This record gives sequence, C-alpha cells and structure tokens, in this order.
Amino acid sequence: MDMQTLNPKIKARGREFFQSISGEAPTVFNKGWWTGKVMDWAMRNEQFKIQLFRFVDVLPYLNTTESLNRHIQEYFVAEDQEIPAVLKWGAKGAGMGKGLAGKVMTKTIRSNIEGMAKQFIIGENTKQAIKNLNKLRKDGFAFTVDILGEATVSEEEGVEYQTNYLHLMDALAQEAKSWKGLGGNSGDWGHAPLTNISIKPSALYSQARPSDFENTVQAIFDRLMPVLDKAMAMGCHVCIDMEQYKYKDITLEVFKRLRSHEKFREYPHIAIVLQSYLLDTDQDLDALLHWARTEHLPISIRLVKGAYWDYETVLAKQHGWDIPVYINKHETDAAFERQTATILRNSDICHYACGSHNIRSIAAAQEMAEELGVPEEQYEFQVLYGMAEPVRKGLRNVAKRVRLYCPYGELIPGMAYLVRRLLENTANESFLKQSFADHEDVDHLLEDPALLAQSGPLSREKTPAPPPLSPSEPFRNEPAPDFTKESERVAYPEALAEVRRQLGRTYPLYINGQEVTTEDLLPSLNPADPGEVVGSVCQASTREIDEAIAAANEALPAWRDLAPEDRAQYIFRAADIARKNIHTLSAWQILEVGKQWNQAHGDVAEAIDFMEYYARDMIRLGRPRRTGKAPGELTHYFYQSKGIAAVIGPWNFPLAISCGMSAASLVTGNCVLYKPAGLSSVVGHTLCQIFRDAGLPPGVFNFVPGRGSVIGDYLVDHPDIALVAFTGSLDVGLRIIERAARLQPGQEHVKKVIAEMGGKNAIIVDDDADLDEAVADIIYSAFGYQGQKCSACSRVIVLDSIYDKFMHRLTKAAQSLPIGPAEDPGNFMGPVVDKGQQDKVNAAVALAEEEGNVVLKRDDHPDTGSYAPLTIVENITPEHRLAQEEIFGPVLAVMRVKDFDQALQWANSTPYALTGAVFSRSPQHLDRARTEFRVGNLYLNRGSTGSMVERHPFGGFKLSGVGSKTGGPDYLLQFMDPRTATENTMRRGFAPIIEGDDWLD
Amino acid sequence: MDMQTLNPKIKARGREFFQSISGEAPTVFNKGWWTGKVMDWAMRNEQFKIQLFRFVDVLPYLNTTESLNRHIQEYFVAEDQEIPAVLKWGAKGAGMGKGLAGKVMTKTIRSNIEGMAKQFIIGENTKQAIKNLNKLRKDGFAFTVDILGEATVSEEEGVEYQTNYLHLMDALAQEAKSWKGLGGNSGDWGHAPLTNISIKPSALYSQARPSDFENTVQAIFDRLMPVLDKAMAMGCHVCIDMEQYKYKDITLEVFKRLRSHEKFREYPHIAIVLQSYLLDTDQDLDALLHWARTEHLPISIRLVKGAYWDYETVLAKQHGWDIPVYINKHETDAAFERQTATILRNSDICHYACGSHNIRSIAAAQEMAEELGVPEEQYEFQVLYGMAEPVRKGLRNVAKRVRLYCPYGELIPGMAYLVRRLLENTANESFLKQSFADHEDVDHLLEDPALLAQSGPLSREKTPAPPPLSPSEPFRNEPAPDFTKESERVAYPEALAEVRRQLGRTYPLYINGQEVTTEDLLPSLNPADPGEVVGSVCQASTREIDEAIAAANEALPAWRDLAPEDRAQYIFRAADIARKNIHTLSAWQILEVGKQWNQAHGDVAEAIDFMEYYARDMIRLGRPRRTGKAPGELTHYFYQSKGIAAVIGPWNFPLAISCGMSAASLVTGNCVLYKPAGLSSVVGHTLCQIFRDAGLPPGVFNFVPGRGSVIGDYLVDHPDIALVAFTGSLDVGLRIIERAARLQPGQEHVKKVIAEMGGKNAIIVDDDADLDEAVADIIYSAFGYQGQKCSACSRVIVLDSIYDKFMHRLTKAAQSLPIGPAEDPGNFMGPVVDKGQQDKVNAAVALAEEEGNVVLKRDDHPDTGSYAPLTIVENITPEHRLAQEEIFGPVLAVMRVKDFDQALQWANSTPYALTGAVFSRSPQHLDRARTEFRVGNLYLNRGSTGSMVERHPFGGFKLSGVGSKTGGPDYLLQFMDPRTATENTMRRGFAPIIEGDDWLD
Repeated sequence: MDMQTLNPKIKARGREFFQSISGEAPTVFNKGWWTGKVMDWAMRNEQFKIQLFRFVDVLPYLNTTESLNRHIQEYFVAEDQEIPAVLKWGAKGAGMGKGLAGKVMTKTIRSNIEGMAKQFIIGENTKQAIKNLNKLRKDGFAFTVDILGEATVSEEEGVEYQTNYLHLMDALAQEAKSWKGLGGNSGDWGHAPLTNISIKPSALYSQARPSDFENTVQAIFDRLMPVLDKAMAMGCHVCIDMEQYKYKDITLEVFKRLRSHEKFREYPHIAIVLQSYLLDTDQDLDALLHWARTEHLPISIRLVKGAYWDYETVLAKQHGWDIPVYINKHETDAAFERQTATILRNSDICHYACGSHNIRSIAAAQEMAEELGVPEEQYEFQVLYGMAEPVRKGLRNVAKRVRLYCPYGELIPGMAYLVRRLLENTANESFLKQSFADHEDVDHLLEDPALLAQSGPLSREKTPAPPPLSPSEPFRNEPAPDFTKESERVAYPEALAEVRRQLGRTYPLYINGQEVTTEDLLPSLNPADPGEVVGSVCQASTREIDEAIAAANEALPAWRDLAPEDRAQYIFRAADIARKNIHTLSAWQILEVGKQWNQAHGDVAEAIDFMEYYARDMIRLGRPRRTGKAPGELTHYFYQSKGIAAVIGPWNFPLAISCGMSAASLVTGNCVLYKPAGLSSVVGHTLCQIFRDAGLPPGVFNFVPGRGSVIGDYLVDHPDIALVAFTGSLDVGLRIIERAARLQPGQEHVKKVIAEMGGKNAIIVDDDADLDEAVADIIYSAFGYQGQKCSACSRVIVLDSIYDKFMHRLTKAAQSLPIGPAEDPGNFMGPVVDKGQQDKVNAAVALAEEEGNVVLKRDDHPDTGSYAPLTIVENITPEHRLAQEEIFGPVLAVMRVKDFDQALQWANSTPYALTGAVFSRSPQHLDRARTEFRVGNLYLNRGSTGSMVERHPFGGFKLSGVGSKTGGPDYLLQFMDPRTATENTMRRGFAPIIEGDDWLD
Repeated sequence: MDMQTLNPKIKARGREFFQSISGEAPTVFNKGWWTGKVMDWAMRNEQFKIQLFRFVDVLPYLNTTESLNRHIQEYFVAEDQEIPAVLKWGAKGAGMGKGLAGKVMTKTIRSNIEGMAKQFIIGENTKQAIKNLNKLRKDGFAFTVDILGEATVSEEEGVEYQTNYLHLMDALAQEAKSWKGLGGNSGDWGHAPLTNISIKPSALYSQARPSDFENTVQAIFDRLMPVLDKAMAMGCHVCIDMEQYKYKDITLEVFKRLRSHEKFREYPHIAIVLQSYLLDTDQDLDALLHWARTEHLPISIRLVKGAYWDYETVLAKQHGWDIPVYINKHETDAAFERQTATILRNSDICHYACGSHNIRSIAAAQEMAEELGVPEEQYEFQVLYGMAEPVRKGLRNVAKRVRLYCPYGELIPGMAYLVRRLLENTANESFLKQSFADHEDVDHLLEDPALLAQSGPLSREKTPAPPPLSPSEPFRNEPAPDFTKESERVAYPEALAEVRRQLGRTYPLYINGQEVTTEDLLPSLNPADPGEVVGSVCQASTREIDEAIAAANEALPAWRDLAPEDRAQYIFRAADIARKNIHTLSAWQILEVGKQWNQAHGDVAEAIDFMEYYARDMIRLGRPRRTGKAPGELTHYFYQSKGIAAVIGPWNFPLAISCGMSAASLVTGNCVLYKPAGLSSVVGHTLCQIFRDAGLPPGVFNFVPGRGSVIGDYLVDHPDIALVAFTGSLDVGLRIIERAARLQPGQEHVKKVIAEMGGKNAIIVDDDADLDEAVADIIYSAFGYQGQKCSACSRVIVLDSIYDKFMHRLTKAAQSLPIGPAEDPGNFMGPVVDKGQQDKVNAAVALAEEEGNVVLKRDDHPDTGSYAPLTIVENITPEHRLAQEEIFGPVLAVMRVKDFDQALQWANSTPYALTGAVFSRSPQHLDRARTEFRVGNLYLNRGSTGSMVERHPFGGFKLSGVGSKTGGPDYLLQFMDPRTATENTMRRGFAPIIEGDDWLD
C-alpha cells in the first residue's frame, strides 16, 4: 500500500467521521455534569488530578462516614481551606462542609464518583452485566466481557477467577439462547459467535514469574483449558488479554500452545491481543503470523495501543532496563497502522480486531481493509464500554461491526479500572482529550502519525538502557535481572553448572599478596543438600592474623597517601570484574547459602553498586574543601584513613555486605583484614578473588577466614586495628563494641566500630491499604530468602477493620508459595542456611505456638536440606518474645491493632529500629509515619526489603546499628578522620588574594 | 584655598616636572638590567610575582648551595620544567641548571637579588651607611636614617635596637663634624639639623599591646628618652615612625608625652608621621594641631600615604573589624592633599615633610605652600632611598629641600624591606608603576584625586565591619576584640568590677525548668587569689541525675520533632544573649579560671560562633535530601536526634566548649544534661543562664554540676543516655568510652561518645623559618593561657642549622613575658587554674630537670595564687616522658633534629594527633607537612592555638579524640541518626513525574 495515495482517503474518511458526530462529546468531557466539570478541573490542575485519581482509587475502602470525611479532608483540603467547589457541585448545602450538611456532601461526593465508575463498568455482578449486555446488543453492538478482579496473590484467587469465568460463561450461554445475531443472521454479522469473553492470564496463576517461564506457561495453560473447553462447547469467543510486558512472551506462548492444542485446532475463536506501543510488536506479529501459516491455524488478533505505558516506563527506569514501549505517542500510532496493514495483508489466516478510539487509526484501518479487499468477516472494531461514546456511535454507523469491551465486577477493582480510564482520557497525548476537550485542529488529528513521529524523539535511540557504568559517569544502580530475556533465563542454569564443576575445592587465605594455607579446614555445605560440599576453606589462627596485620601495617603508608582518585580506580576495576562475572558469582551464592536467582543477583548487583558508589563518593570527599574565606589564610578540610580495618561479614548477604564494608574501607585508604562468615566463606573467597584481580597492592586487602572462637576477639582486641566494620547479630555486635572500646597496651587510637545488627521490622497495614500491593509485598518482605534478611518483615501490624480480609488473602498467598531448592526458579522459598539456623527457627515456631495462634505452618517442604516451616502466627502483642526477638527465618508475627496510633506505637515498641513499612492511602497517616515510625529505612506503600545503594541508604539505629547508613552520603566519613591544614599566606604584610576570599568589593 | 584655581597650576607644575625628567625611569623599571627585566615579568605574571617576592624574603636564610638550589627549584620550577629564563639572565651557562653550571647560575641569582636589595639599603652596617650618606649629601640630598631590624620579640632585642640607635647617633655626630649644611649655610638649608634619624617605636618594646595601652606608652617612652637626650645633645632630628594601625594611638601618645616633656619643650626637632590612608587621620591631625597650639609647642609632621595597606585590610577582614584604611587609592591621595593643606595652614606651629613619590602630590604641596606663603624652612620633601630616582632628581632641581629616607641594616631585615619596596613599585595602583612602567597619560596622573575618588567605591560605606550577625545571614565569626578602641579597653575593668560585686553567691542546679538546690556545695576560687571565692555551686547527687533524665525523657518527643529551623531559633537567641553580655561573660572567666582579657573574649566569642554555626548547619542538614532519582519513587534522607545527651565540659574553655557541645546537642534535637567542670562551674552556670534566657522548654537543657566521683560514672552508665559529649583528659575520656560501650539493663541503643581529649602538639621550625613570626607565635602557642589548652604547643622541633639563633630569641622572648594576675592586661601569663594543676606542672618541671636541660624556668611570679613556672627544656627526644605526656601547663620541650624528615618523624611520634604547626618557607616542606604531619589541625606559618569556628574546624584523632571536628561540616552528624523514608508513588500503574526524576530525555 502506498500511504501517499492512501493518506488523502484516510483523511477524507476521518473528516467525514468527525462531521458525522459533530457537536457530540464523550460523557467524561460533558461539562454539564459533575464528571465533566471535575475532569475539566483535573486537566487544568495537575495536583488536583493526582489527588482525585488517588482518592478514587481508595474510595471503596472508605466504609465509614468518618473515614470518608477524613480522606476528603486529607486529599483535597489544604490548610485552612475548603473542599474545592468543583467537588461539591451537586451537593445540597455545599459550602458548609460541617455537621449534617457535611455528611450529606461527602455522601454526594461518594455517589458522584461511584456513578462515574458505573459509567465504565457494565455491572457489579453477572446479573447486572447480562442485563446491560442485552441492552447493548439491542443498540446494535457486539460485546466482549471481562471480569474485573483484584491482583491474584494466591492460588485460591487464581482458581476463583477461573471459576468466575466458567460461571459467567454458563450464564451467557443461557442468555444467548434468546439472542439473534446482529445484522439478523445466525452469528453476529453472519459469522461471529454471539458470546465473547476476554481473560487476563496472570490473574489465573498467583506464581507467574518470567524467571519461571515454563512453569508459568504451563500453569496458566492448565487453568485456561477448562475455560476453552467450555467456550468450544458453547461456541464462545475467547480473547487472551495482553497485560504488562513481563508477561508478554508467556502469554504468546500460552496462546500458541492452546491454539495448537489438538482439542482446539479446529476452533478458530481463540484470540490474542498485541500492543502497538511495544517495540517488540512488529517482530512478534511477524513471528505469530509465520507460526499460524506454518501450523495452518487461522488466528485472531486484537490490536491495541497498550494501557501500561506509565507503568512500563517507570518500571524500566527503576530497574535499569530498556524501555519496552515507544516514548513518542506518534510512533505508537504509526506502529498501530503498520501492524494493522500487516494483519490485514494476512487476512486469510488472521482475523483483525481494531482496538482504538482514535479516529485516524480507525479510518486508516478502514481504508486499508478496503484497499486490500479484506472480507468483512475478517475484521471488526472494538472500543471500551463507557468511553468515547460519539466514536462508538459513529463507528456503528460507518463500520457496523463494533464490539464493546465490557468489564464488570465489584467496586474495588472497579475503581482501579476507573482510574486507568480517567488517566487515559486526561493524558495530554490522548486522542480523545485532544479531540473532545482541547478541540484540536481536525486536520492535525488526522495527520499520518508516521510523519508526525519524525519530529519527535526516536524511541529506538532513547529507550535502550545505557551500557555498563563507566567511572566517568555519575553513579547509577546495576540493572535488575530482566528475566523477560531468554538469555538471562538460561544464564543461571549455565552458571550453576559451571560452578558445580568447581565444588569441593580447598581455599587458602590471602595475606600480603600471597596465598596461605592452614591445616584447619572448614567445609561449606549446600543448604538444600548438605551432602554437597561447596568448598573447604582454610581457617586462620592468631598467627595468620598477626601476619596479616604486619602486612597491612607495611602497606598502609603508601595506600593511605595514594590519591583518592587512584584508590577509586582499583575499586572501579573490582566492580567491573564483578559485573562481568555476575552470573557465576550469583551461582556460588545459590549453592552456598541458598539464595534464589533474583536474590543472588540482587546481592551481586548490590556489591557492584557499593563499589561504584563508594569509589565516586571518595572522589567527591577526596577533594580538599576550603573552609572559611578569610583573606590571608587558606584552610583545607580533608580526610585521612583510620588505619587497619577488620571487616567481619555476615552470611546472608555474603558478597554485597562484605564487599560494601571492604570497598568502603579500602577506598578511604584503610588496609583490610576480611573475615567472612563461616557459612559463606566460599563466597567470601570470591570477594578476595575480585580484589586480587583488581590488582590491589600486597597487604592492602587480606582474606582471613577463621573461626570466631579462635580469632574473633583476637582480631577485635588487636591494638593495631583502628576500625571494625561488622554486620551480623546483635550479640556479636555488642561484644565487638564493648571489647573495641577497651584501650589495649600499645594501642594509639580510639577504635571505631561500624556495626549493623538486627531488626524486628514491622509493616503496618492501614484500614485503607491497597491489599493487592500489601499482601504481595509483605509476602516478599517476610519470606523472601526465607526471611533471612535483617530488613525482613517479621511483624505485620494490621488495623482491625481490614484485618480479616487481609489475613485471609495473606494466609492464602503464603500457602501458595512453592518451596524447594533455590536453584529451581519455580521455588519462592528454599531451606534456611544451615541446621543451626533451622533449629533456631523451629524453636521460634514452637514459641509461636505457645504465645499466639499459628494460622499457617508450612511443613510441606523437601525432606533433604535445612528447611524451616514458613509460619504465620497471630494474636501477638508487644509483650511477646515473638514481637521482640529477631528470628531470622520465615516466621511472621501478626499484631492486630485498633487504630493507626496504636499501630505506630507497637511498630516502635522494640529495641530495634531498622526497617519498616506502611501500606496506607491516607496522606496524613503517611506523613505521620514519616516522622513517627522511627526506623532507619521506612517504606511507604512498598515492602521493607530490597534497599538499593544511593536510592535507599541502608541502616538503622537503637540496637539495630550505630546509625550509619551504607550506600549513603555519610557512610564513608566513618572510615576516616577529618583533618585541616591552614596556611597563613600573609608574608611580610602581603597576602595574595585568591578566589573565594571574603575581599573588598 | 580654591582647588578650582589651584588645580591648573598644580597640573602645569606637574607637567613641567614630568618634562624635566622625561626619558628617565627608576632603576627598578629599567629593562636593560636584571631587576627591570624581572620586575617586568613579575608585573605581567601574578603567580611569578608572588613566588619571586616570597623567594626574596627567604633568600638570606639560604646559607648553603643545596638549600639555595632546592628553594629555587621549589619556588620557580614547575614539574619537568626549567627555571624561568628571566631569572637566569646574566648567568653564564644559563639553560643548563645542573652541576657546576647550575651552581654558578644559582649563585648569580642570589647575587642579582642581593644587588637589588642593596639598591634600597644604604648599607649593611653603620660604617657603610655613613659612607653612603656622605655621598648623598655630596649629591645635595639631606637624609634621615633608619635602622632595619627583625621584629622585636624580647626585651633584649628592644634594648639592642635602642643601643643601635645610640651608637648610630654617636657615629653620625662624629661624622657630622666634617659636614657643611646643604645650601652652604649652617644647618641644612639654613635651618635643619644635619643629622636626622627615624625610629620605630614598636621595635623598642617587645610587649607592646594595644590592650595594655598605658604600660606600652610608658615603656616606649622610657626607651626613647635616652635617644632624645642624645639627639638634643648633638642637635639631631628624631622622627618617630608610624607603623601598623594598632600602634597608632600609642605612638601619638608617646610623641605628645615626649614633645611636651619638660626636657624637650624647647627642642623642636621631634617629628611624628601621619598616614593619609587612615580614615582617622583628618581627626588625628586636627587634634594634634590643636594640642600643639594649646601647648604652644611647635611640632613636625611627616605626612605619608601609608605602607601597610595589604596588612591592615587583611587583618581587619580576618578579625571582623572596621577597615581602618581607604580602600580607594584616590581617596588616600585626596586625603594627602587635604592634610597637606591643613598642615601648611598651620605652618606657624607645624613643620611639614611631604613624604611621597607621587608627582601630583608633590606638585600640590608645592602649589599650596606657595599659595599660603609658607616659609621655606617650614616644609621639605622626603623620598625613599633607592626609589623613584627620577623623582628625587627632579625634586632636588625644583624643590631643593629633599631628604632621603635611608634604611640600613643586615640582609635579613633588608630583604624583608626589599619585598615591601618591590610590592610598592609593582602594585597596580602605584603612581610609579603607572608613570614609569605603564606610561599612563600624564594628564590623568595629574588629575585632582578628589575628583577621581568620586568615581570609585566610597571607603566610608565599605570599610565598617558589618553589624552583629543576624540569623538570615551566612555564618561569620564574632569579631575579635579591637583594643585600639578605648571603649573596648575600658569595658574590661568595668565588667570585672561588676562581676566582683556578685562574687560569693550560691548557684543552684537547673532541672526541668526549675532551680534545684542541694546541700553539697563546691566553692570555686580565683586562681590568682584563692582567698577570693568566685561562687559556690550546688552539686548533684544521683537523685538529681535521675530527676534530670526523667525531665529530659519527658521533653524529648516534642523537642526531637520540632522543626530544625525552630530549634535553631532558640540557639540564635542564646547567641544573641551571649553577644550582648560578652564582657561580663569574659570577666567571669578572668576571675574563675584566670584567662587573660583576650583569651576570655576569645572563649566567649567562640561560644557565640558555635551557636551561630551549628544553628545554621542544622538548618542545612534539617532539609530532607532526596536520594536517588528513580521515577515512581521518592526517598528523603533526613536526621533524627539520638535522644538524651550528657555534656561533660572542661574548665579550660569553660564557656566555648561546653556551649559548643550543648548547642550541637540541642539544635540536633537532643535533650541535655550538662555537667561543667568543678573548677569552672560558675562559668558553667552562666551557660545555663544563657539557655534559660533563650527560653528553651523545661527539661530540654538541664544544669547538673556534680562531683565526678559521685555522678560521673552514674551519668555515663545510665541506660537512657544516648550520647556523651565529652572534652577533657585522656584518662577520663577513655574511661567514658569504655563504660559507655557496655549495654546496661534497659538500654535500647548503642551509646555514642564524642570525646575530645589531649594533645602533645609540636611546632616544627624549619631551617628557613621566618623567626620573627616563629618565635612570637610559639611563645603565644606554648604559654598563652599558661599552656592550658589542648591545642597548646608543648614540643618545638627545631632544625639543627637554625637551632641556636632560634633558641636564643625564644628564650629571651619567654624571659620578657610579664607574669601576674590575668585581670591586668599587662600580664602575658597568669597562674594555672588551681593548686592541683600547679602541682602537676611542678612535677613536670622536675621531670624536665631530670630528662633534659632546663634553659628557662621563670620563678619570678607573684607569691599569691597558683603560679607555675614558665619552663623551657631542651635536649628532649621522643623517648622522654616530656615528649609523650600532656602537661597542660607552660612547659615547652625543645627537640633538636638534623633535618625535616626527622622533624616530621618526631612530630608524629606521640599517641596524640591534635594540632601542629610548621614554620617554613620551603614550598615543598609545607606541602609534605600537609600530608605527612598527621594531626587534626595543622597550621603552616602560624601558631597552633586559636582555631576559629568554620575557619579551622577543630579536633584530632589517635588518642586526641574520636575524629570529630567541632565547628566543622561533619560535627552535627554525630549527634543524630540518619533516616530515610521512601514512598512508592506509583498507584494503579500511574506515577506523577516530579522534578529531579531520571525521566525520559
């Protein structure tokens, strides 16, 4: 097709379309009504729009007048002001806002917003939905129906979603008996099934994860089979919706397996959705068409622009990934036309559903179909129920085959759906807004998007994530693993195999640039299979400690006085080495300490981040700063390393934390004796190898694994140790702090101890929390890596009014988690690190059974390996040991509170203050939490784990630590002493005046 | 006189003058010679100029070829480069720079520079001087002769300076016998004495101090009497030179007392100098003329522009004083003409000497004298020997009565004098440079300076020091006391009298906003008179500590969460209260702990500075910082106070340090229990009063003086204490550190200890040190406030080759210090703080007598009071206790080293690392010291005490402290724990993009 020829036709058709609906506007823009007024105000006031949409989102949770009132105040009323007039429109007694009149008004606001939601939702239940579908059909529209639902956090919810569809289909089948096809024939328009459903694959399976590709595909496939069976039996069309990018390949695979399944090869009414905003879609479409042709299977594609643009871009930016979508709306529109053409050219094997409200896109599809002579039964038009009413009316008139996408369901998911629709309508780039609110020039609206796109930024250039960080760039985090990429998914089994070939080796110490072996060996075992020896590590005695200290003393003067930039270069090199070996380094952790793929990757990425961040921060701090500005005097403020650092690492973040403490010590000019935790000393050796490969001078970094009982106190007490960087348990931390404070004979300094210790972290679930997020994030925070993180959630504090609903979902979600060896990406949880830890957790579980009411105890784990039961215990109050003592395992204490005040009070009621989180949609409660939830790292509407370097400087106070924060701007200061050098620059009464002097002017 | 009439005449005369010397240039600008070439290069290259002048200054100290060579390299040779060609000019073998040729070249450089010096100096000794004076007289010039000398640091040097003049006068008298008057009459020009000397009053008396006005005047007067006696006897004119502004009023007073002394009332040949660049001079001149007229005493004034402009401006800026000089050169020139006119109008009682090389100034003086009909014998012209030869020649031709100011003396002071002359010649505003180097337009050069001044900045508006700091301004230091102001000098006796009326009172504790008395009283005594009870202070028992902690716990939540800006306001108010009471607060210290006026003032000023600085710094730190820039997420990094602080203060900076630790604790949101040192608990109570008056809420600041033995451990051990801020001795500091590290039952945090402990500070005197500065600064650093500062110099490390000269001057200087009660400003040193301290110092002196060679032990102090002998002991090496242990008294150990390497090694050879200083003029040694002299506060060419807030953040490491720095950018961080709050701002897939997000583009 030649667009030069086609464009005038498309434009003519578009103009005709516009004319046919002239003067009409979608309800949402109708300023005669509340919705239109509020939308108008929202479009002109970004802050109000954000508040409004967030309020809409939380509204269904506001079950009492008090709560509704309070939220209206918090969302809309600035200090000493009134509710914006626009919101009150239509309320009797508006303007008063207090007492009875206020009550009436807030009720009016609620009912106005609920009314707005109802506009987009065909009903709150099957009965209502079917009644309204009947009405639609009478108006000449076909439909596809979709069941709204909350996020699926448990298998119970996945099954329920499936069941709902089966019930819906039964009801539709029953109702359809009385229907005639649109256009008066059998089947709609003579060819289409009368019933038609759309279904979201991720809602069917709670454990869908790109890293677990095959299991996820299979699980969704299995849940869809009964739906398809029924569909074929009743003659119902099934469209598998496309959701977030991370599920795209999974969904395509599910579709292909279903479509080609022997049962359904002859059943053509199975469709899939493609999103034009994805950069992948041209390729995906070609592949899909090629597959259909090869398999001789006619398929059906609904082409849409895509509804997760904000989410995809933000997520990609947050994770350091390629942005998967076009960043220029015109490019998406152009892709839509391009892909429309592709599908229409293949109309012999592909039915096309044009899913757009954009009149240019619609007109283009029409012209192309006409140009290509596509038979009418091979294409149709789809629009969303409640949206763009003039477009749907115009379409019905000109294109006839119009299907409405009709969601139905309860208010909670309904409101979330409403928010999406409102965002879509009010986005500046929305065709509807441009057409019906902004009244842009029709010719411009109908312009070929391929031409318009050329003047904007080019997504292909802008969206790829930048290459690995180079020392000259500002810090950014190492990207998260992108398991949508097959290369990432296969890298793990390969790395595991490679590492497995190296198991069982013996690892020496590394002192003064030399490998040193000792007789005392410590074997390190795979927690999932204690028969598998990961490695044996030589253990230092005090003699080796003395040797290492002698070497460090020797190396110190040169290292301390090396320019900070030069020290930083070594650390940059080390970061680079770690980056190049990220999969192997992860694999060692998977086998030695039982980290899941993503947890292990996160650990190595954090190690890289620490190095990249501290090296840059040292360059910043390494520049002497002038203090004061008196003329005739020049003072520089600069830092000097403290001397020899003992770095004592934990096993739970065996690379990241050890690397962070070591890199910080090194880059600030200290020499290091690094003692890894015994349980992770092979990973400890990988850190040693990284620094060796980075070429640090002999004696600067020494690897001295050893038994705490043999060398622990000796190292801490040594008079030449200037600083101890420790991360680990409270008991050991306090012992170090106390011992290091005693001046030893020959010691010429006060020792510095940087100690990060435990946590007893709470997450508060407010009565208006978004449970979709809260449940998923609490599961991850409490049970991710078996709860063996100092940041793990070990207490959840739930407000009374939401308690039952939350607990039900949480328990079911926890029940759904697959448990087994970490190396299998299908498992969410694995064994705890060793037998000792297993015993500790079991003891805690026994205590839980004494102190509270255990609502879940997962004993369904493999027999081999040090598994501990995932446990949820309720009825816990601050007096219980379970509310006070760190467990370091998958045991979650649930505390029920009457209100938010009590929640904060209980949250703060332990001697720890490390992390915490709040799920709430009350702006005031979030604000209060910021101040009054006194922990080092507080997260609002997010889980309590997964802090990232620079973004979330990590560390707590009280007994959680000494108040440092790793990966933050103050961390390195602890490793150095500040110095000043002041030069009197006046000689013989003459002082050169230099820039920055407070001089005459 | 009407300048409109006069100006054309002045210009005409000036043009004539220029014409008469047309084509001639001062030697210094003659590019045919080495000097002119080098000056030309210096004027075009500021960095070279600075290096050159500094090199000239140090040259006479470079006694070996090695040293000379090394300095030439260090001053002039950038990395891998050669000596600048201009410097090598005239040297054979130039360009090679190594080996023998290099030796020749460096010798040439030395002799070229020495030759340059000789141009400005009439001889190196009396004999040479007289020979050259003879020559001058033959050329028709009169002279005044001035003896160059190093700074007078001891009475021996003051007497020597006097003696040198007496000898010079004898020689002149002898020589003058053969002279005839210039112009052929008796006396020069028929009226003037043939011999004429100029003398610097401050050089006659080593203890000259504006604060000690009367003693200083009397001492100089006494030293001048024999000179005047001899002058009158031989008929010699004596001019009392004017030096730095600080001596101006002293000099005027000396002049008046001498001139009006009954012996000299009839001897008119006593002159004084006035400096036109001083804003005071119009007024001083009027007063002086009025005095002369009232007293019927004819006087003689030499009017000059003034030679200390750089020094005066820098000094005033450094101390926060009004700048005493015009900052616009034209204003000075205009003042010169105005004052010339004033003097000439009073020619009946005042002889005028016009001291300028400025042809406009000279022409104006001539025209004015003519206009006013001033008799020739009532005015003359003076120019500097070696300067502006064309001017002096021209002057002789037109004005006849020309006197050359002829300095003579040794090379060391000669070089310093040369530097001044070079600076004067090469300053951009120099008339000579403008005339003879820049060849500016003659008409412009001859313009009326009063007109030119109007286009520049107005000194009257620009030079006053700004008013007291307001909270909205950036930090600046509280001004130093300006004892040139009489108001400042009388403020002390008045404040002392006021305080004395309040002595002997009883002071209560202050807990929870209430005064609390106890039975246990501790009297505090005046160390200069232990019979004088300064006050009695109630001592806390553990009961009061418990009460104070309960009050602090009660007050904490509100105080901690108060906005940082609001907390800062209380501290600003406290600073304001201290500022308003600075003299009374100082007086309390003078009487309670024996601080001298300036030392006490410095302490109170530092207290104010701490408050002003910390309050501002908290406002800075109080702003939550965003960390990371991921979209969809907003993290703020902020700080929270640690809780309850125990502030334990020392007696030696009884207000400043206690106030600093308290203000830092408070402004960061901690509640405070403040325990002052027993010896300074009345001053401690003044701090309490300041915070009470500032209106702090009850319980936030509690004053709990008490006996260490009773409450010390109890306070530190208390489980509710979160931080201890301590300044004091090493023993107590280590005890606190050790005890605070033990977790006590009920304690829910790790305690923070901020400890500043002792020092064993060394000052290195390099072989090229400027001894004028080194001796004076070491005296002040070692013996200021009786050496009772942690920053005090207690070791001086002297290079072998300068040892004898330095030690002689140092010992004589120390011998000269007046010792007695601190309240008398005449005393440099007073008693140590109490009997206990006296015993300790005496024990150290006994040890000194054992370990080394005591070269000075000042037992000549009052009998009453706890005086300890000022002691200097040599032959000390690092092995001696005297080189290792802090004494905290006026005992100075001298260590002799062979070279700078050993000096650094010995300097670092103690377990302390607090302050240190180096006197050196070797750029490389200064650079090495910056890195290798490892102390918290290093000073280059400055004493080791007197650090100022912000300018010199104070504190050390090793056993001197925990590596904090008061008054610096990192200090407050120690009083707080960092926190982060991260909000996930994405809801329903939508995240508002905010400024700072790493977003698309």
